[in-house]
Amino acid sequence: MKNIYASIITIGDELLIGQVIDTNSAWIAQQLNKIGIAVRNRVAIGDDADEIKNTLNFERKNTEVVLITGGLGPTNDDITKELLCDYFSGKMIVDKGALENVKYLFEKVYNKPVSDINLKQAEVPDVCEVIQNKRGSAPGMIFHKEGTIFISMPGVPYEMMGIMEDVIPYLQQKFQLPVILHKTILTAGIGESALAEIIKDFEDNLPKEIRLAYLPNYGMVRLRLSTSGFNKIKTEQAISEQFLQLKNLVKDYMVVDDDETMQQVLGKMLLRNKKTISTAESCTGGSIASLITSVPGSSAYFEGSIVSYSYEIKETLLGVKKETLEKYGAVSEETVREMLSGLLAKMKTDYGIAVSGIMGPGGGMPDKPVGTVWVAVGSKEKQVAKKFKQRFARAKNIEVTAVMALNLMRTFLMSGE
Amino acid sequence: MKNIYASIITIGDELLIGQVIDTNSAWIAQQLNKIGIAVRNRVAIGDDADEIKNTLNFERKNTEVVLITGGLGPTNDDITKELLCDYFSGKMIVDKGALENVKYLFEKVYNKPVSDINLKQAEVPDVCEVIQNKRGSAPGMIFHKEGTIFISMPGVPYEMMGIMEDVIPYLQQKFQLPVILHKTILTAGIGESALAEIIKDFEDNLPKEIRLAYLPNYGMVRLRLSTSGFNKIKTEQAISEQFLQLKNLVKDYMVVDDDETMQQVLGKMLLRNKKTISTAESCTGGSIASLITSVPGSSAYFEGSIVSYSYEIKETLLGVKKETLEKYGAVSEETVREMLSGLLAKMKTDYGIAVSGIMGPGGGMPDKPVGTVWVAVGSKEKQVAKKFKQRFARAKNIEVTAVMALNLMRTFLMSGE
Repeated sequence: MKNIYASIITIGDELLIGQVIDTNSAWIAQQLNKIGIAVRNRVAIGDDADEIKNTLNFERKNTEVVLITGGLGPTNDDITKELLCDYFSGKMIVDKGALENVKYLFEKVYNKPVSDINLKQAEVPDVCEVIQNKRGSAPGMIFHKEGTIFISMPGVPYEMMGIMEDVIPYLQQKFQLPVILHKTILTAGIGESALAEIIKDFEDNLPKEIRLAYLPNYGMVRLRLSTSGFNKIKTEQAISEQFLQLKNLVKDYMVVDDDETMQQVLGKMLLRNKKTISTAESCTGGSIASLITSVPGSSAYFEGSIVSYSYEIKETLLGVKKETLEKYGAVSEETVREMLSGLLAKMKTDYGIAVSGIMGPGGGMPDKPVGTVWVAVGSKEKQVAKKFKQRFARAKNIEVTAVMALNLMRTFLMSGE
Repeated sequence: MKNIYASIITIGDELLIGQVIDTNSAWIAQQLNKIGIAVRNRVAIGDDADEIKNTLNFERKNTEVVLITGGLGPTNDDITKELLCDYFSGKMIVDKGALENVKYLFEKVYNKPVSDINLKQAEVPDVCEVIQNKRGSAPGMIFHKEGTIFISMPGVPYEMMGIMEDVIPYLQQKFQLPVILHKTILTAGIGESALAEIIKDFEDNLPKEIRLAYLPNYGMVRLRLSTSGFNKIKTEQAISEQFLQLKNLVKDYMVVDDDETMQQVLGKMLLRNKKTISTAESCTGGSIASLITSVPGSSAYFEGSIVSYSYEIKETLLGVKKETLEKYGAVSEETVREMLSGLLAKMKTDYGIAVSGIMGPGGGMPDKPVGTVWVAVGSKEKQVAKKFKQRFARAKNIEVTAVMALNLMRTFLMSGE
């Protein structure tokens, strides 16, 4: 039994000028990993015939599967389909299923007449197997060449994901696949190198088939153990033993021993204790609420948020005193504490999070530079306030502040308040 | 004069298992484009010595510049620095500047003792030029081999961006670069293939040095013209002529003739008319407020938001009538209209946006399936309500709804209300 490798090629000029961030290839990599296919590399190239051919030639040397997204649109800048037809020495024919699909989409779903350009979407090279696209008009296509399987899919993420629902069982049936296992710990409150010191001995003694990775982000670090094997039980057992040791070593900093986000962890705690939460946000502008509500089912514990961007709204909706704002400013411990009390009174939730800060690029002051943030969390009975200092650009400052505020709430709950 | 090409290599196992989405390479591509360097491709590979070497060998054949990010951390899973040292036949030495930087960072900024692991960050191959990292401990490195320049940078986006501030002028000084020009139109309310029909003749008659791309996203389509040339004035003139024609053809659907987001366009309109806005959000959970406040300076027109996730908050904070909620439900024209009136009364803004819908995966009903959304926008004097039907998964439904709500507000303002 041998490992099966894949390459992911994403096609489109927009990827090379940076106008679009490629989320497709990360998602595809995740899906392949789950079924035991390792991704050797991911390549983004332009809508350029020679470049696409060279890349196909290069990638098929080292991999059993080449997944391709993009360049299948009906417009002239999309050249992938014609090129694949040529590369695999086929000729274009109309696929009956794809034709029915295009007609159905336009007549029944979009309620628009089908144009000649749309009908072209139903043409495919005669040397491919067609995977029908249930979410759009460009079909998926499977080709074979010298032992490598090539699968071409549209670049629209939602359509590609629909086609992958058929690709996954297809690949599972074609190959005998190992299990690939990852186990992740999310830590907070400690840096990458300090963590490395703590787990140095553990790392030096890891069996060579188990790999450790450090993934720092937002002032948090994820530790991930990875391994693969054809005997599922043995592989599972081997990684679990190491994972238990690792968890024990970093337990003081562990947020969760799973690949979960801060908002998922906090949501589960609230759900478990049947408690509710709300937020009062100034500088984060609704980002904390938006993180909390990104979790399905969050309506069970999230009541709502008051985004108070102006002084007026802080006063009228959250009851922050005019004097407090004048004396201490909007970005102060006093203000966030009053925002929190006002929030809990209005929303009648068990817990609340209040945030005020300066995210930049403007708004900084000598005593309160850009990046200064005050966060208060707590209940009617007890509140905690903490000052943070962010050091990024605006968008990142907002993201980091939102996650840190959630983490402050989490540690407050952990301490049993 | 010839075109200069670059490749971007991002290194890290996390990129291949899909745990992390690569935003670095899109950002780098943007920066290179601005100074006239075209990106030939972007490759993501794992922390694997052979794979890295093969990729370096392959990429340098076709490109003048190879930019590398990642794998420079102090921990054992990061192998890039040792590998580059070997690849360029150097030996490790301590760089004085990097050493001072590491010591300064730990002693003055982090207030932590410097460990041996941290000190290793100051070691670099003796065959490279060092670019000091002002935002972290791993320095940037420049290597040369057979006419190609290799630049290695850390994978942490904020640190990489700091180093790029030195890389850009370095490359501008090394090469004589053409101008690369892009002009973009954001359209809404029309699909990709319908747009293609409208501009078919224009597209067929485009001079071959100007390329047209369709970039569909969120039910909007961006049209982008691209070209490059060594004579700046002539190049600018050629693309401007075509751009004018294109704008004229699609004027009925044009949101803006620039590479701007919906929230930037709306913000500018409000700023120009000295008007204020607020939002009342149920299903979007603060995402609209968060989009609006992602624009620097938005405090000039954004007052705040009431995120009313529960029935209670809709009643107590937005004054939606109990009977309305009971009779029509939270997702109804009647409810969003009352949310909007309540919002405008509370926030005292000129305009408001109110949204209520079902984002999934749960919560769907026979008469209101997942994806049903009602949006109301307007002022005290006039309001407009519209029903939308989203067809994606939760996160995407929320994103699309937020952008469509902003667009409804924009068209309301355009109509001169």
